[in-house]
Amino acid sequence: MSKKITTRSENFSKWYNDIVIQADLAENSGVRGCMVIKPYGFAIWEEMKSVLDKMFKESGHVNAYFPMFIPKSFFTKEANHVAGFAKECAIVTHYRLKNNNSGQIIVDPNAKLEEELIVRPTSETIIWDTYRKWIKSYRDLPLLINQWANVVRWEMRPRLFLRTSEFLWQEGHTAHETEEEAIEESKKILFIYKNFIEKTLSIPVIEGLKTDREKFAGAVDTYCIEALMQDGKALQAGTSHFLGQNFARAFDVKFANRNGELEYVWASSWGVSTRLIGALVMSHSDDNGLVLPPKLAPYQVVLIPIYHNNSEYDNLVKVMKSISTELRNLNIRVKEDFRDTHKPGWKFSEYELKGVPIRIAMGPRDLTNKTVELVRRDTLSKEVVKLQGLSTIIVNMLDEIQENLFLRATSFKKDNTFSVDNFDDFKAKINTGGFVLAHWDGTLKTEEKIKKLTKATIRCMPIEFKKEIGKCILSGNASSQRVIFAKSY
Amino acid sequence: MSKKITTRSENFSKWYNDIVIQADLAENSGVRGCMVIKPYGFAIWEEMKSVLDKMFKESGHVNAYFPMFIPKSFFTKEANHVAGFAKECAIVTHYRLKNNNSGQIIVDPNAKLEEELIVRPTSETIIWDTYRKWIKSYRDLPLLINQWANVVRWEMRPRLFLRTSEFLWQEGHTAHETEEEAIEESKKILFIYKNFIEKTLSIPVIEGLKTDREKFAGAVDTYCIEALMQDGKALQAGTSHFLGQNFARAFDVKFANRNGELEYVWASSWGVSTRLIGALVMSHSDDNGLVLPPKLAPYQVVLIPIYHNNSEYDNLVKVMKSISTELRNLNIRVKEDFRDTHKPGWKFSEYELKGVPIRIAMGPRDLTNKTVELVRRDTLSKEVVKLQGLSTIIVNMLDEIQENLFLRATSFKKDNTFSVDNFDDFKAKINTGGFVLAHWDGTLKTEEKIKKLTKATIRCMPIEFKKEIGKCILSGNASSQRVIFAKSY
Repeated sequence: MSKKITTRSENFSKWYNDIVIQADLAENSGVRGCMVIKPYGFAIWEEMKSVLDKMFKESGHVNAYFPMFIPKSFFTKEANHVAGFAKECAIVTHYRLKNNNSGQIIVDPNAKLEEELIVRPTSETIIWDTYRKWIKSYRDLPLLINQWANVVRWEMRPRLFLRTSEFLWQEGHTAHETEEEAIEESKKILFIYKNFIEKTLSIPVIEGLKTDREKFAGAVDTYCIEALMQDGKALQAGTSHFLGQNFARAFDVKFANRNGELEYVWASSWGVSTRLIGALVMSHSDDNGLVLPPKLAPYQVVLIPIYHNNSEYDNLVKVMKSISTELRNLNIRVKEDFRDTHKPGWKFSEYELKGVPIRIAMGPRDLTNKTVELVRRDTLSKEVVKLQGLSTIIVNMLDEIQENLFLRATSFKKDNTFSVDNFDDFKAKINTGGFVLAHWDGTLKTEEKIKKLTKATIRCMPIEFKKEIGKCILSGNASSQRVIFAKSY
Repeated sequence: MSKKITTRSENFSKWYNDIVIQADLAENSGVRGCMVIKPYGFAIWEEMKSVLDKMFKESGHVNAYFPMFIPKSFFTKEANHVAGFAKECAIVTHYRLKNNNSGQIIVDPNAKLEEELIVRPTSETIIWDTYRKWIKSYRDLPLLINQWANVVRWEMRPRLFLRTSEFLWQEGHTAHETEEEAIEESKKILFIYKNFIEKTLSIPVIEGLKTDREKFAGAVDTYCIEALMQDGKALQAGTSHFLGQNFARAFDVKFANRNGELEYVWASSWGVSTRLIGALVMSHSDDNGLVLPPKLAPYQVVLIPIYHNNSEYDNLVKVMKSISTELRNLNIRVKEDFRDTHKPGWKFSEYELKGVPIRIAMGPRDLTNKTVELVRRDTLSKEVVKLQGLSTIIVNMLDEIQENLFLRATSFKKDNTFSVDNFDDFKAKINTGGFVLAHWDGTLKTEEKIKKLTKATIRCMPIEFKKEIGKCILSGNASSQRVIFAKSY
């Protein structure tokens, strides 16, 4: 069973799919648009959840769970929201099957729901319908609630992790006394996301504000973080919305403020999803397979013995078991592959394909010399080191790999970020790929015209950039800041 | 805001509901039959998940995620399965809403699915459709996979946690080479559940086999654990099914065995759900509110200062903060309630209602004497202890409470378990409540007749009981073992 991966230069999109499938991350299911997340892929998601959940809790958030069904009428209460989500939803209309006269199983026409239920594409509506009962006074605020859940947005052109009809995510929904506090919360979360994605996924991101065209349906402002994939396309890695009083108005959620006056509650919402696994693959992996940052790798180290007979095997396994005990005591996730059904060479390729950060191999000569062979997945560099002091070397090497992946991706991003000042240069750079920083006149008309002409969209208006007077690349009208254009996922 | 709880003797079912609502565990949502699990209730579920997930992983299981939508045709492949689940499901028939001519939002009739999708009531079908692709040879076995997910079983008479249309659970689905191995797995899980529920929830259970009438739709055998609630009704706390080759046949999942012959794969499946929170409430709580076993309590200890002026407050808070630091360093979950918006008495009732295992209160005299006042939630007993050595006292007291709740529930179970040998005694005991051990002739006819006459069902045929020759309480026919009857949730 030789596994062959398409190279990135051959066909990036096929390369991506090969890695997801062959590294056992996920696969398509028997249900159109829905994926099965396989144990190896799910273990990565579990690590992401665990890190992020801790960050949310440390910043005062708690988890809860709201129904996944939303009555159709809830959706219609916020006009922009329904326009943004109505086109892509799963609708439950009946609650019973039955046998027909020919013995087939059919939907029972007598079990039609009075009101259709929508499977949540996002939960603002059901949550704000609930918050109305929870919030009476400023003393009930802020509410800082998150939920980990599955959501459904119907996809006509699904791609594993990047666009699937059902996906997993977390969605935070917070309620505040003042506008300032709600804005502050949405920015705070944006920087939690940035921190998480840069430190844990080793992916550098740019943080900014979406244009009105690109913002969340129902938001006043959408903050986002954007990452650059190896093919030069952008990927939105997380969003945090300042919702103003839109959902409070739609669901009539008022509170008595400190002056005793009734006022609509201020809100934020924010989320990241299993899409991040797609970002992870497209940021770090290479033509040999997946490359995982150690903090998210289900196995951080794999141990493989090389032997010619039973006695060598027994001696090697004995030493290698003591290595794994030592590493596990340091909370390192170790995979022992001592199977004698597969050859070492096969195992080497397998764990390379699966992106295990460090491979430790040991043969009879290593046994004599009290050494092991280490291979780093990020650089594929090999070295022979002494058993004595091995665990310190491993701990440091895991840190180095984590850091190196970030530096590598950061320099890729730097090399593929361009400032342009006229439309010809713009088109050229958009075609080769990357973040393209250009002046824009701030109008929807120009934004849409640029998209039509180049397929590029405004990924964000970066927060970090200095104000800079300039002229729009398309209209020539005045502009006060460069924005980031790119083709995107 | 005084909260009043109905007493158990007044109305057990209302008492249950009062506790769930007033202790902030959950509430009904705007969607019929679906609940909102509030942060305090969800924190209990998170603790349960964390303990159980660890037990699964330590016994070699891994997590994955399968689609929540199941094509209707999958359901029809296993005849008993569809009969058991078809009556209570949510059916997705369309994938788009649109505006009609009057500007209303309606289901777009042009977006009808070719095949309806069922929201999973359980995932055997979609998972075995996937396993077909994963299993070719005995080398691919066993597969030991679990998923944490939401499921939907339409409920006409919903009750918070006990019966809701959507609920959260874990479902394990394993695949094996041999019948023996699959049976062994289903029993192993049964004892993991028993261990979890007795050690973590402090609820004693009886383990046994379901009768054919009561078993899972699609199983060969259903193992279960049954717990006794304070009103004398039984609650099924977990089930583990030996599925034989039923789903392998239905989905054509064959493997090459060690003799090179193709054979259908053997299976088990097993689950526990948020229903356990209902069991927790009904096992331990009292007329003052929730009583939580320390291992699951979101806060194990609450700290409340009693003061008359700012200087007392400042001094108390200073000492109490050092207490919480010390306790937190021992991984004890501490809630500091230093709010000056609520009086100590209000706080005492609040945390009693919420079942916090230990309350530490401290007033000016305690400050002088270097003491604190401790109140245990399980016994409501009060004692004044020295600050010196407090954390050791707390650690031990948490263990004692955990143990005491189990002992209390065990003696309740013992006092409410009865052996009867004729139908009059049977009816009397069933009416007063409890586990009733009686001989049964093993026929469906008798089982159904008893249910009709008394509303009692056979909860299980206990594994632990000795064989004992006797006569069926209803038919007088021969019986080889007593079984457990009870009214149930």
